[in-house]
Amino acid sequence: MPAFTPVANPAALIAATVEAIRPADGDAANRADERQGRLTKPPGALGRLEGLATRIAGITGHDRPHLDQRLVIVAAGDHGVTAQGVSAFPAEVTAQMVANFLAGGAAINVLASQAGARVLVVDAGVRSETPVHPDLLRLRLGPGTDDISRGPAMTRVLAERAIAEGIALFERERASGGVDIVALGEMGIGNSTSAAAIVATVTDRHPRSVTGRGTGVDDTHYELKVAAIERALQVNAPDPTDGVGLLAALGGFEIGVLAGAYLAAAAARVPAVIDGVISGAAALVAQAIAPDAVDAFIASHRSVEPGHHAMLEHLRLEPMLDLGMRLGEGSGAALGISLCVAACRLLDEMATFDEAGVSDSEDVVEPEV
Amino acid sequence: MPAFTPVANPAALIAATVEAIRPADGDAANRADERQGRLTKPPGALGRLEGLATRIAGITGHDRPHLDQRLVIVAAGDHGVTAQGVSAFPAEVTAQMVANFLAGGAAINVLASQAGARVLVVDAGVRSETPVHPDLLRLRLGPGTDDISRGPAMTRVLAERAIAEGIALFERERASGGVDIVALGEMGIGNSTSAAAIVATVTDRHPRSVTGRGTGVDDTHYELKVAAIERALQVNAPDPTDGVGLLAALGGFEIGVLAGAYLAAAAARVPAVIDGVISGAAALVAQAIAPDAVDAFIASHRSVEPGHHAMLEHLRLEPMLDLGMRLGEGSGAALGISLCVAACRLLDEMATFDEAGVSDSEDVVEPEV
Repeated sequence: MPAFTPVANPAALIAATVEAIRPADGDAANRADERQGRLTKPPGALGRLEGLATRIAGITGHDRPHLDQRLVIVAAGDHGVTAQGVSAFPAEVTAQMVANFLAGGAAINVLASQAGARVLVVDAGVRSETPVHPDLLRLRLGPGTDDISRGPAMTRVLAERAIAEGIALFERERASGGVDIVALGEMGIGNSTSAAAIVATVTDRHPRSVTGRGTGVDDTHYELKVAAIERALQVNAPDPTDGVGLLAALGGFEIGVLAGAYLAAAAARVPAVIDGVISGAAALVAQAIAPDAVDAFIASHRSVEPGHHAMLEHLRLEPMLDLGMRLGEGSGAALGISLCVAACRLLDEMATFDEAGVSDSEDVVEPEV
Repeated sequence: MPAFTPVANPAALIAATVEAIRPADGDAANRADERQGRLTKPPGALGRLEGLATRIAGITGHDRPHLDQRLVIVAAGDHGVTAQGVSAFPAEVTAQMVANFLAGGAAINVLASQAGARVLVVDAGVRSETPVHPDLLRLRLGPGTDDISRGPAMTRVLAERAIAEGIALFERERASGGVDIVALGEMGIGNSTSAAAIVATVTDRHPRSVTGRGTGVDDTHYELKVAAIERALQVNAPDPTDGVGLLAALGGFEIGVLAGAYLAAAAARVPAVIDGVISGAAALVAQAIAPDAVDAFIASHRSVEPGHHAMLEHLRLEPMLDLGMRLGEGSGAALGISLCVAACRLLDEMATFDEAGVSDSEDVVEPEV
């Protein structure tokens, strides 16, 4: 287990982190853009990879950013709302999948390896016991959240603690291995219910319009899921502008930890890659706490979950991939890391017209008469 | 320069290659599909990555395909039709970019490196001199094609030779370094004019509807481009079912070499990744010669070139990426290789529910009453 001392003053750490967050660096982005125009390709021919590299230049403040140290955080937590029959899988699967992550058998292990990223697994609040393991940070903020259809997911104190621990773990990772880009993933049976409740609140939409099938519930359990979210919103009446309150009301622990990691990444000028609907819900919580944090976010893929579209629209982010994925774990975000790395390597490593001695598009041949 | 003896009997090599092409292996694809259902994820949660791995299983005949040896072929050639003012860049840029590929300064160098692929550059018929270099295969089938707006691009004998040399070079690569997946890219000022003419012929559409801005021509030169294609179709009256004739009529040398490489890949059961509109035009030529070859093709990205959409529809292929790219060189296909590798690694490396001791979705919790 990584060295881990609980954060002494969560509220103070959150406040200091929010204070450090700045908007994107327009000068660095402009310098990157200017370089794009001199590289040996027709202007704009690399399409969205050009804008992506420019965005990362703005986030990092470097006009030729290097993304060598890559981290995937997979935060896991359980959800009391599973008692309402909202998921196609039993709650024990959360702990079982944590073991699978540690054994290297899950999709995120493969995709992180492919992206050249290390994986940190976080037990944010798994109900069953999780193993002591060098790659597992055992925060264990609670034995799963309380059932949001009957009251708040957690106390406000615990919500602050979850966010602060997310900040602290990101800072420890940065201090030890370094972090040039981070993907935020999660695992938690029932957490697409929490996420949909957060999206409905923040984007002011009806729960049904932002609730999907998660891991694949049938019609009966889908209706139970929508009903549970409707009750959660009635019972808790969450305030969309109060990020900590939103998390306390609707959960979960893993969403709180990820929200903290988003804030810490933004404060450290590290691009934070959003995965699917749960990772995105954490981004919404982070945005509610610090609106400028969004400048550091990158949308990786468009999930098939309907809430994902609504949230990305709210964050004004356009995803790069649309592969019909709906797994979570950071799987789409890991693919996104590879695109970010490709975009930044192109910006950095390609020759300019001058360097390569290639003619520019000024001297067009006129037609023979 | 790689060892290279001209193909003795081009027509015989093409015929033998076509003879060896078989449809996809449905059994291997089914076994891959069956395995997908046992991996530790909700069924279908990896979206199109699952279908991609299944397709590659069908192509290769292996239910857990490994894509370790990755090749990008970049074939370059010049086009007589540039005399009609169809391009935003002067023709000298073809040879200059070949030098840039060899120096490692082009986008494809970066993206191939990112995909773990080696790059073979082919001078299929560049007008200016190209250097002797270990990574350059100097076929030099002609000093660029003839102007297709005034007659055929090349003789039928040369068209056969281009295709046969494409087959031979793929076979040499397979015999030396091995090839588990290949991306087909190109460089050639004026070749989006050839490609649009081929697409218009094969898909039976009006030239204007499949002609794009290529490297970025202005309105005046765009009209010249459309007019040149219209004249090329009138003068040559190409038969869309005669692949060799199509190539002879509309060119270019690099398109012929790529068409041969597509055929050789299909015969060798190696996935062949299509890049943009010129690479796709070569795929159309290959399909006209051997319809079953399409089973081995994978569409990587959707180019902004309008002809690309028409051609992928004709080939019944759905691209994975849509990033607004329009560079060529194999750039989108190199990104596609990474997705193929990710898809196959997921299929091969992920644990099954049984192996990981993870509960399946049978035991859904019923709601509390």
